[in-house]
Amino acid sequence: MHAGMAREVIARCRSLAAHSDEPGFTTRTFLSESMRAVHADLSGWMTQAGMAVRVDASGNLRGTYEGASADARRLFIGSHLDTVPHAGAFDGVLGVVMGVALAESLDGRRLPFSIEVVGFSEEEGVRFGAPFIGSRAFVGDVDDALLARQDADGISIEQAIANFGLDPSRVGDARADANPLGYLEFHIEQGPVLDTLHHPLGIVDRIVGRSYADVIFTGAAGHAGTTPMDGRRDAVAGAAEWIGGVEAHGRRTPGLVATTGQVEVTPGASNVIAGRCRVSLDVRHADDALRTAAVDRLRTMAHEIAARRGLALDLSARFEHPDTAMDGSLTAMLTRAVERTGVPATTISSGAGHDAMIVAAHMPAAMLFIRTPGGVSHHPDESVTEEDVTAALAAGGTFLDEMASAAGG
Amino acid sequence: MHAGMAREVIARCRSLAAHSDEPGFTTRTFLSESMRAVHADLSGWMTQAGMAVRVDASGNLRGTYEGASADARRLFIGSHLDTVPHAGAFDGVLGVVMGVALAESLDGRRLPFSIEVVGFSEEEGVRFGAPFIGSRAFVGDVDDALLARQDADGISIEQAIANFGLDPSRVGDARADANPLGYLEFHIEQGPVLDTLHHPLGIVDRIVGRSYADVIFTGAAGHAGTTPMDGRRDAVAGAAEWIGGVEAHGRRTPGLVATTGQVEVTPGASNVIAGRCRVSLDVRHADDALRTAAVDRLRTMAHEIAARRGLALDLSARFEHPDTAMDGSLTAMLTRAVERTGVPATTISSGAGHDAMIVAAHMPAAMLFIRTPGGVSHHPDESVTEEDVTAALAAGGTFLDEMASAAGG
Repeated sequence: MHAGMAREVIARCRSLAAHSDEPGFTTRTFLSESMRAVHADLSGWMTQAGMAVRVDASGNLRGTYEGASADARRLFIGSHLDTVPHAGAFDGVLGVVMGVALAESLDGRRLPFSIEVVGFSEEEGVRFGAPFIGSRAFVGDVDDALLARQDADGISIEQAIANFGLDPSRVGDARADANPLGYLEFHIEQGPVLDTLHHPLGIVDRIVGRSYADVIFTGAAGHAGTTPMDGRRDAVAGAAEWIGGVEAHGRRTPGLVATTGQVEVTPGASNVIAGRCRVSLDVRHADDALRTAAVDRLRTMAHEIAARRGLALDLSARFEHPDTAMDGSLTAMLTRAVERTGVPATTISSGAGHDAMIVAAHMPAAMLFIRTPGGVSHHPDESVTEEDVTAALAAGGTFLDEMASAAGG
Repeated sequence: MHAGMAREVIARCRSLAAHSDEPGFTTRTFLSESMRAVHADLSGWMTQAGMAVRVDASGNLRGTYEGASADARRLFIGSHLDTVPHAGAFDGVLGVVMGVALAESLDGRRLPFSIEVVGFSEEEGVRFGAPFIGSRAFVGDVDDALLARQDADGISIEQAIANFGLDPSRVGDARADANPLGYLEFHIEQGPVLDTLHHPLGIVDRIVGRSYADVIFTGAAGHAGTTPMDGRRDAVAGAAEWIGGVEAHGRRTPGLVATTGQVEVTPGASNVIAGRCRVSLDVRHADDALRTAAVDRLRTMAHEIAARRGLALDLSARFEHPDTAMDGSLTAMLTRAVERTGVPATTISSGAGHDAMIVAAHMPAAMLFIRTPGGVSHHPDESVTEEDVTAALAAGGTFLDEMASAAGG
């Protein structure tokens, strides 16, 4: 691995960040035109690294670096290529770019296994309100209901796939081959833990469970000047009371995070009392039972607030994923690889969902976190340091060597 | 006045409601294409009533029914033609359609004064966040700063006027001629007072003052899964606390109404803690001092909340209008006219702002409210009854007769 590789990895991530649906920001949604530009750049780098490139029917970009034999088993290295609105340059993309860099660093050397780098098409759930479209296709978990799901413009996932020039009827072909060696994901931590410990890397032991719901309060629109305060059924006021309750419940429950990141008001005029207010709810906790109990408590709270205020309430769960452990032996191998690079092998749980969470139910999965300065993520200021990426690349290289030994190479 | 006139007035209002910027709803903003369609229909009815029609450079539709002599003074009858989003059929439009109906009911008879019916182009403030564009032009209160104001698409008021085919450099010509007899506005009450009293009409004595501000909380966007609750600077949570405070302050202050009808969150993704949240504030009270004190209190509250939560705060006043009394002698004349129709002459203060508020500083102004069933307004269910419109037309006709007598006709 040459010395400038970490610098090159960071430069590649920053150059990919310029491909955006929204000028001036990094916002890249499922199979947008900016995603096509990212595929083009990554395909070039993959080809340069000696990889065979394809895009599967779910829009995942896949580059294969062949092993020593034609029937070699396969190690997947992946992460996602889509972003949240106004994102940074590293969330997701870094893991894919590092996978390509590791293949490139082999410089033609053949291992007893193939490496397939996967750039998942969708993880954040921005465009369709359904996350993990790419990794769900990768594990064969895409059904007709998911394909029929529509974005804000009424375009279905199926149609979006066809619009991108892919064949939605072949989504089943996106599935990983049987009997893989496993799945490895590099990802920025997106939180403050490693930065606080002054440790460059963290080995993920588990990904905490997550619940996501839509909560809609419906009252009565009315004139802001002529409707007395006690005659109102104000959807915004009801939603605001509940948002306060969500925050308070999050604060007093150790380990719980509860977020209301979207608020949409109808009709949304300054001189009209709001008739309808939709709020998104995102709840996570390492303990599934505590997470479920928190969602139940917040649902009851919403019903109480709505009933007291004469509002109608619609609370619909949109996504639910249990706490997921990473694979023990793959994680032990990753831990040894980190130790051999000379940096502390810190174990850390992931509060964020990742593609590894979807993949882990179908094959051995391991995950390495890279320190995120200030814990700043989902924001243009998101960053990584060259020394941390160097450490991660070194650990990745050692991991490949370990696995080669274990596979008898 | 023929018997079916009230029915015809209501039918005309309902047919105009079909001209909308948004299919399926009535949403009509400043100088939109749907406004052009409204002008076309009204121009036809004005011409049929024997009126000369023009559109002034601020987009006000103006129809003149000439008086007995060429130098006759002028009585203006007006209201606005724009709407809030998802509006009803009567707010604003009813007053213009009734003015045309009153001119038509004269059936060629000449009064000692001219009648000019004015359909103001803009009152609600939806497109440019600045209300009363039409009536401000009518009183000569449009300056370069207002003309430069931009809508969400970056189009200025000046450009919107030009795009409609009008000449923005001639906005000064929209000003009413000197020495008018006065201004009369018919408008639905948009509140529950007359409906509760079972009275069809209300004579407006004053329009209560109003303050409108934009309040922006800025925190730090962050990952919803990895940022612990006590490490957050969540703009939505701060805004929600303040919205609760606004509502509570409104409830405990007699006569005050305080509304937060717009909430906009950035970036607005379910898995991202909000970095920015804008909330609109609309505060009204019949007592200017109490209104100003309430705004001050809510501003202090916002600063306290922001400081405690580590948020930045930007509170900018966007519109402020003092409590405005209607003209005493014109209102007395209107009261007598109502009494002569045989319905109670109820005096009522207006909690809503109206064009009459802008006009009153420049000429004698009076205003008649028509009962709003259930107080429902700014909503598709907004309605009026045929009997109430009949009473209002009768009062309007008597008012014209009274004024003719006073003017020596």
